Amino acid sequence: MGCNEKDAILAADVLLRSDLRGIDSHGVARLSGYVRLWEKQRINATPNIRIVHETPTTATIDGDAGLGLVVAPFAMKVAMEKAAIYGTGWVAVKNSNHFGIAGYHALMAVEQDMIGISMTNASPLVAPTYANERLLGTNPMCYAFPAGKYPPVIVDMATSAAANGKLEIAQRANSPIPEGWAQDKDGKTSVNPNELKAGGSLLPLGSDKDHGSHKGYGLSATVDILSAVLSGANYGPWVPPFVAFLEPSANPVGEGLGHFFGALRVDGFRPAEDFKNHLDNWIERFKSAKTVDPDKRVIIPGEPEHAFEQERKVSGIPLIDGVVTDLNVLADHLQISRL
Amino acid sequence: MGCNEKDAILAADVLLRSDLRGIDSHGVARLSGYVRLWEKQRINATPNIRIVHETPTTATIDGDAGLGLVVAPFAMKVAMEKAAIYGTGWVAVKNSNHFGIAGYHALMAVEQDMIGISMTNASPLVAPTYANERLLGTNPMCYAFPAGKYPPVIVDMATSAAANGKLEIAQRANSPIPEGWAQDKDGKTSVNPNELKAGGSLLPLGSDKDHGSHKGYGLSATVDILSAVLSGANYGPWVPPFVAFLEPSANPVGEGLGHFFGALRVDGFRPAEDFKNHLDNWIERFKSAKTVDPDKRVIIPGEPEHAFEQERKVSGIPLIDGVVTDLNVLADHLQISRL
Repeated sequence: MGCNEKDAILAADVLLRSDLRGIDSHGVARLSGYVRLWEKQRINATPNIRIVHETPTTATIDGDAGLGLVVAPFAMKVAMEKAAIYGTGWVAVKNSNHFGIAGYHALMAVEQDMIGISMTNASPLVAPTYANERLLGTNPMCYAFPAGKYPPVIVDMATSAAANGKLEIAQRANSPIPEGWAQDKDGKTSVNPNELKAGGSLLPLGSDKDHGSHKGYGLSATVDILSAVLSGANYGPWVPPFVAFLEPSANPVGEGLGHFFGALRVDGFRPAEDFKNHLDNWIERFKSAKTVDPDKRVIIPGEPEHAFEQERKVSGIPLIDGVVTDLNVLADHLQISRL
Repeated sequence: MGCNEKDAILAADVLLRSDLRGIDSHGVARLSGYVRLWEKQRINATPNIRIVHETPTTATIDGDAGLGLVVAPFAMKVAMEKAAIYGTGWVAVKNSNHFGIAGYHALMAVEQDMIGISMTNASPLVAPTYANERLLGTNPMCYAFPAGKYPPVIVDMATSAAANGKLEIAQRANSPIPEGWAQDKDGKTSVNPNELKAGGSLLPLGSDKDHGSHKGYGLSATVDILSAVLSGANYGPWVPPFVAFLEPSANPVGEGLGHFFGALRVDGFRPAEDFKNHLDNWIERFKSAKTVDPDKRVIIPGEPEHAFEQERKVSGIPLIDGVVTDLNVLADHLQISRL
C-alpha cells in the first residue's frame, strides 16, 4: 500500500497480536478490507499524524485518514508520555480508521505500570433501546490493569449484546443466534444470523429494556461521545462504514472515525507494588469462587486471550480456508508471493 | 449525628437531589441507614478527609470513614481543581461509605464545562458469570457530558442487570421479577423478588453468558479495581455492607469502601462551544430516530431524571408512607421534630 516500513511492521503487529490472542475476527482476516479502503482512497498510507490541540494532560490528534492500526499506537504513546510527567494522559483522535483490537493499545500502557484505557466508535450497526435504526457501532471499550504474578486484567468488550464476529461464526455454521442479539428490519427479535444483511440491527448489551439495554446503549453513547464528539470525528449514524462497498455519508459531521485513549500511572495513586499485590489477591479470590457448575470456574477478564497467546506463540495461528484464500487473492492482486 | 453545618447541608443536598431526580431508592429513604451506621461507629460524623498521595493530575484521598455523601464531593472538587490547571484530574478514594447517586458528583464537573466521571464499589450482591457467590456490588459508573441547549447527557448505571432498588419495588408490589435479574442460592435463575434474602445473588448486566454477562461482570470489576484496588479500600467480597445489622469482614483487605472520580476539561480537546453544538446535534439525531413502536421515542441518557427534577422542583417530592414513617421514627429517636 505504500506505508513506510515502520508503519507496515506496526500495523502487521496489531493484526497478528489479535490472531495470537484468539480474536480471529480482527486479525489478518481483515487485511483485505483495509486494502480495499486504501484503493478507494479512504485510507492514507502516508499520513501526517499530528496533535492539533493540547494541554499538559490532554491532546486531540488528527489521524490524517491513516490506518487506525498506526494512528492508535501513536495516540496511546502521546497519552503515556503525558502520564509519565503529570500522572495521567488523555487523547481523543479524529480522522482515523478502524484500529484493530482495543486491547492492543491499552496493553501498551500496562507494560509501563500504567492503567490503559482504549475505545473507538465504529460503523453503525446497533439500534439504541426503542429504535428501529442503526445509530451506533459495536463501540468497544477496554480497561487494562497491570497485575503482579498474574497476566494483566483486561476488560475488552463490544458494548453490544454480541460482537459482529459472533454473528459471522453463526453465519458460517448456518446456525441460529440467541434471541436478544439482533432485531429484524421491523424491530422484531430475530434468531437469523444474516439479519444485518436484511436491514436488521444488532442490540445493545442488555438486549431489551427489561434487562438493561438502555445501559448498553448508554455505554455505547459514552464511547461515541468521548471518541468523536470530543475529537471532531463523525459520530452516530455518520461514522464511515468499514466495508469499502458502502459509501461514507455525503454530509459528514466530522472527520473519519474517532478513538479515545487514557493512561494513568498506577504510582500516581499508590505504590505500584501495593496495587499489583492487591490485584493478585483480587484475581485469586475470584478464580477460587464457588461456582454453579463444579466443572467451570470464574474467568478473570483477559485470561482466555492470554492463554491463546501463550499457546499460539508456540503452535502457531490456525487460519480457516476462507482467510487463506482471501490472503492469496490479495497477494496475487498486489503481485506479491502467496502464503 | 454531629456533622458540622456545612457537611450536614451538603449531605442533605445529595440525598434530596436524588429524590428530585426520581431516584427515590437513593434519597431520604436511606437517611436512617446512614444514621444506623453512625450509631455502630462505622460512619465518622467529623472526619478529617485528606489527600494521602498525589501527582499533578492524580490523588488518593482517605475519607476517614466519613459520610460518602460528604467525602465524594470533596474528592470531585480535588479532581476539578487539578483539571482546571492541567486539563484533567483523577481521584481514587478509600475509607469512605456509600456516596448516594453517582450522577450528583459527575454533574459538579459538568457545571464547569468538564466531563465528569464518578464510580463506586458497593456491598457484594452480584455473582460474576459462572459464580454462585456474591463477589461484587451493583458497582455503578457514571459519565456526564455538558450539552448546549439541551440538558447534560448523563449515563448513570448500575453494572448489574437490575439495581437493587428495582427488586425492592417488586417486593413492595409482591410481583415476580424478570428472569435474568437474579439467581437463587443454588445458582438457578429466579423470578422471586425476595431471592437475595434467601441466599441468592443479583446477576451482572447481560444476565447470562450468551447475552454478555461476562461484560457486565467486566465492567463491575473495572469499577471495583479503580475504586478500591487503586485507592486501598476493600474490594470484592470484602466491601463492608451498607446495612448496619451485617458486620464488616473481620479480615479486611483495605479501608472502608472506595470511589473513583475524573474531571476532563472539554476545552482540553476542542473549544467547548464546538463540543456542545455537536452534542446538541447528537441528541437531536437520536431523539428523532425511527422507532419500533411509534408511540415511543429514543430516550437520551439522563433525560428522564432531568424531567423529574424540573417537575419535582415545582410540585414537590412525593414520599411513600413507609419512608414518612421511617423518617418520623428517626425523628423521635433523635429527639427532633417530626415531618
